[in-house]
Amino acid sequence: MPRDIAGLKGILPPIPTPFSNRDEFARDRLRDNIRAWNRSALTGYVVLGSNGEGVLLSPRERLDVLSAAREDIPDDRWMVAGTGCPSTHETVELARYAAKIGADVALVLPPSYYRGRMTREALVRHYASVADAAGIPILIYNMPACTGMDLDAETIVALAAHPNVIGIKDSGGDVVKLGAVHAALGARFRVFAGSAGFLLPALAMGAVGGILALANIAPAECLAIHEAFVSGRVDAARQIQLRMIPINAAVTSRWGVAGLKAAMDLLGRYGGPVRGPLVDLTEREIAELEAMLDRAGLTREEERGLRS
Amino acid sequence: MPRDIAGLKGILPPIPTPFSNRDEFARDRLRDNIRAWNRSALTGYVVLGSNGEGVLLSPRERLDVLSAAREDIPDDRWMVAGTGCPSTHETVELARYAAKIGADVALVLPPSYYRGRMTREALVRHYASVADAAGIPILIYNMPACTGMDLDAETIVALAAHPNVIGIKDSGGDVVKLGAVHAALGARFRVFAGSAGFLLPALAMGAVGGILALANIAPAECLAIHEAFVSGRVDAARQIQLRMIPINAAVTSRWGVAGLKAAMDLLGRYGGPVRGPLVDLTEREIAELEAMLDRAGLTREEERGLRS
Amino acid sequence: MPRDIAGLKGILPPIPTPFSNRDEFARDRLRDNIRAWNRSALTGYVVLGSNGEGVLLSPRERLDVLSAAREDIPDDRWMVAGTGCPSTHETVELARYAAKIGADVALVLPPSYYRGRMTREALVRHYASVADAAGIPILIYNMPACTGMDLDAETIVALAAHPNVIGIKDSGGDVVKLGAVHAALGARFRVFAGSAGFLLPALAMGAVGGILALANIAPAECLAIHEAFVSGRVDAARQIQLRMIPINAAVTSRWGVAGLKAAMDLLGRYGGPVRGPLVDLTEREIAELEAMLDRAGLTREEERGLRS
Amino acid sequence: MPRDIAGLKGILPPIPTPFSNRDEFARDRLRDNIRAWNRSALTGYVVLGSNGEGVLLSPRERLDVLSAAREDIPDDRWMVAGTGCPSTHETVELARYAAKIGADVALVLPPSYYRGRMTREALVRHYASVADAAGIPILIYNMPACTGMDLDAETIVALAAHPNVIGIKDSGGDVVKLGAVHAALGARFRVFAGSAGFLLPALAMGAVGGILALANIAPAECLAIHEAFVSGRVDAARQIQLRMIPINAAVTSRWGVAGLKAAMDLLGRYGGPVRGPLVDLTEREIAELEAMLDRAGLTREEERGLRS
Repeated sequence: MPRDIAGLKGILPPIPTPFSNRDEFARDRLRDNIRAWNRSALTGYVVLGSNGEGVLLSPRERLDVLSAAREDIPDDRWMVAGTGCPSTHETVELARYAAKIGADVALVLPPSYYRGRMTREALVRHYASVADAAGIPILIYNMPACTGMDLDAETIVALAAHPNVIGIKDSGGDVVKLGAVHAALGARFRVFAGSAGFLLPALAMGAVGGILALANIAPAECLAIHEAFVSGRVDAARQIQLRMIPINAAVTSRWGVAGLKAAMDLLGRYGGPVRGPLVDLTEREIAELEAMLDRAGLTREEERGLRS
Repeated sequence: MPRDIAGLKGILPPIPTPFSNRDEFARDRLRDNIRAWNRSALTGYVVLGSNGEGVLLSPRERLDVLSAAREDIPDDRWMVAGTGCPSTHETVELARYAAKIGADVALVLPPSYYRGRMTREALVRHYASVADAAGIPILIYNMPACTGMDLDAETIVALAAHPNVIGIKDSGGDVVKLGAVHAALGARFRVFAGSAGFLLPALAMGAVGGILALANIAPAECLAIHEAFVSGRVDAARQIQLRMIPINAAVTSRWGVAGLKAAMDLLGRYGGPVRGPLVDLTEREIAELEAMLDRAGLTREEERGLRS
Repeated sequence: MPRDIAGLKGILPPIPTPFSNRDEFARDRLRDNIRAWNRSALTGYVVLGSNGEGVLLSPRERLDVLSAAREDIPDDRWMVAGTGCPSTHETVELARYAAKIGADVALVLPPSYYRGRMTREALVRHYASVADAAGIPILIYNMPACTGMDLDAETIVALAAHPNVIGIKDSGGDVVKLGAVHAALGARFRVFAGSAGFLLPALAMGAVGGILALANIAPAECLAIHEAFVSGRVDAARQIQLRMIPINAAVTSRWGVAGLKAAMDLLGRYGGPVRGPLVDLTEREIAELEAMLDRAGLTREEERGLRS
Repeated sequence: MPRDIAGLKGILPPIPTPFSNRDEFARDRLRDNIRAWNRSALTGYVVLGSNGEGVLLSPRERLDVLSAAREDIPDDRWMVAGTGCPSTHETVELARYAAKIGADVALVLPPSYYRGRMTREALVRHYASVADAAGIPILIYNMPACTGMDLDAETIVALAAHPNVIGIKDSGGDVVKLGAVHAALGARFRVFAGSAGFLLPALAMGAVGGILALANIAPAECLAIHEAFVSGRVDAARQIQLRMIPINAAVTSRWGVAGLKAAMDLLGRYGGPVRGPLVDLTEREIAELEAMLDRAGLTREEERGLRS
């Protein structure tokens, strides 16, 4: 039985896929990370998003990672599975697999290789095929920095005409668009900030939460922004929000997954290496990142005893 | 004596320059418009911004419009004069003129024709020349839709190193940047949303107000968003904000000054014609605009008795 | 024994992958198409380029298509295999497979999903890994319309430092860059126009030929442009070139693979359906395309007896 | 009586406006430069183009520079006057002034400040107003690097419907577009390459010449490319073309007018300072430029005795 969509809100990290030094999926490391994150009030986890290096995994590995995550994620947390693939057929197959193993929601990136031909009609057709067949609700994943396509409000509203398309993670940062989408579709369509840099302004516009790379390394802070906002303490929310902007940029636009994994290593989680063509941070970059974590007030959880 | 910068906050419309049907500055129409706006609690007025068609005026007309506006704007309202010109020399001259006639602040667009050479250093030099000579404080005007240049946070912080550069009107919509600038410079640097579509999220990030085309036709609504926000009623602010998004897009990104002037005509202000190469709205577009004003709840002030 | 690179010049079509109406690889149709093309003096074929819908095939299908093409392509023609994949590991694997079955060259698209992190260094590392392991020479594939990344001259020169990187197919249309690359690297680096719209100007800058979607439907015309140019008849080359611009745009930037396949169907080859998320042309679009083919002087080969 | 448009071909430099060290128009320096250039077979001169810093001059200075140039340019050379201004009215006025003093052609940049509203219809209206009133033929000036707008082929063809719009200087580098425009309009519409980096490929597509910043410092080389091309020696043309690419980039995209003026100073012409917000080259940049001139084979005319 599908979960009540009203519960899909708050903070979810799109978790990295841990690799061993031999570039293999490090299954135990995933379990350790999820156990640690479970100590926070995170709503759930996104598996195989951009930070999960999903596009760099083989088809077999994708199934393995989803299955492993399903084992590790407790029943009271949401599991969102990234299932976007270049072809409609593959996307349907992966979403169906995700449904079969018990993922709650499929996160679907728009196919972008032939972006010049991805008209609104083509996208509606693609999402409808997936939403018809998946067996679980679909969350749109707008990620212009990776796809080179920025879904506009009209397109999002057109995609949402399918009853099984229940929301969006938007990483583009255009909060006016988020507001327009929320105004058009109301609370039944779940809008999530896709990057922690604009979590607070997105909430102000009607977003219900955030799917945030930063939540992997600063779950307490991301949760605190959300909680302060919903309890009417906008000034308190802003203070944390502003403090998070530089470190969020470091682990997203500036250094991406490699930066995020390095930060996890520095903070007592398992980050480990990225997979080529991505490149690990240099020693020098790691030192710079460490200083930024420090300025943001982020230290090993064990040392600060942060809970949320 | 310069005004206390702490008072520069709230809502200011960048007012259109009224032209007669013979394409001449319609001096009396300006007075009538300002008198009507004075019934609202607007902080002041921006004269010769993008909506003022400043770039389409002759040098002589620019002086005339600034002088006329100074006569019409009461002493308890701020007068911000748009003085950006392609050359540093002209920008200095116009800013000095603005200071001489009693404008409170000069709004300075970055020169953009040679944008490929507008390095951070060149911009620092330009703004420093103006800020040294103007005699009144300088507000940066970031307007990527018109200049094709988007000043980034580091550049804005570099420009703000000059003590006479006291804030920014940013029309680009990147609220993360607004947050980063505010975090770096604090309350001494006045951040204004440059378009009403993101007024609320900008306030959430630390902006002190908005310089908004929409405030020409919906002063009460813009003021109400600001007031609701500062009094802690974010939900109330959001309701008005979301309602304003479509009509704001109509009078900015979609139809620009011609749309704004047509809306003023429809709402009982004087809009009048735009100057070439701009093109007035067609009958059909005016009808569509009228329907949008209606949906946004904007009607003739006389009919709704809106006050703020 | 690898072929002499000096022979890699002239015209090669990046051939579509034919699908049956049940969306399966139509093996026989591929053979028929190649047999027909073999009647022209094409240098060879690119298999699994953008027009081959390579990114929409399963890993298994990719191997099948490459193997089938190898059977069908005569020994006196070059076989270039598209082997670009999102991960370095997969790209190496596919290039090695291509080498094993006897492809002459691997065409390698830069990985673009994490484009924000695809620094020159990351790209050099990726291409070097592939070039070290492939066992056949590597041709760079610059395709900004699909990848959202435009490799600049400096990056191309850096990639070409590897002795096994022997040239580029550049579809971006910046002929100044092609000239700069040719000037820097000389004739040992084979520059190919990646789209027929700029074949002649690319040849003028030093390109040795073209890898052209248009060559699937207008091999004689593409060959004639090349031949006229190398024999010093630039005016004759221009006449054909200008006539080809609109129809080339139709089967590339405007309608892409779906347009190309429809044109093949209209001209007596097998085009067949595209695979989702791509969408076949509508009846109306097909009629428009037919008129464009007619204006370009392209009709069924059987009817015009074109030879080159 | 207007000159025969068929003579408008070959190479024209868009000449810089010389300023004294006190930032005033250096009238005598202009005469000296033109006298020196007259020793080459240049077709004529463009005055107040982008390299003329036209947008940085006062209205009075623009008239002075045009009048001075008219005195200095011999009757057997074409004088093309840059007359693009932000407003239609000003553009008309300046074009009429240019006609009155005897300029042969007006070069008209599209107004770009309100680029979001510069629909094809608005541009057609603007150019028609200017073409109706100017009294001399109009050359369109497409300059995306400065205007942030790139006129497409359809728009250019629409503008060319006015019989007084006789050609284009296109600096964007899209040679496919140049070909499409030439194919649509034929020889009556004069297409000029707007930058020397793509002179040869533009000629291959049907351009009749180039309006080239580089022609200020390398007139012999630019003329030699053109001559070699029209006499069927494409290989010879290419050799010079490729050698010119780096130095052309230095005085255009990289360092712009400041680079061009510095190069003129190094080569025995008068370059002098640029006007703010432009910034002169540093000593270090000048040294780098000097080395580039040397590599391109460009030295003081006196030393090499180049004639064309």
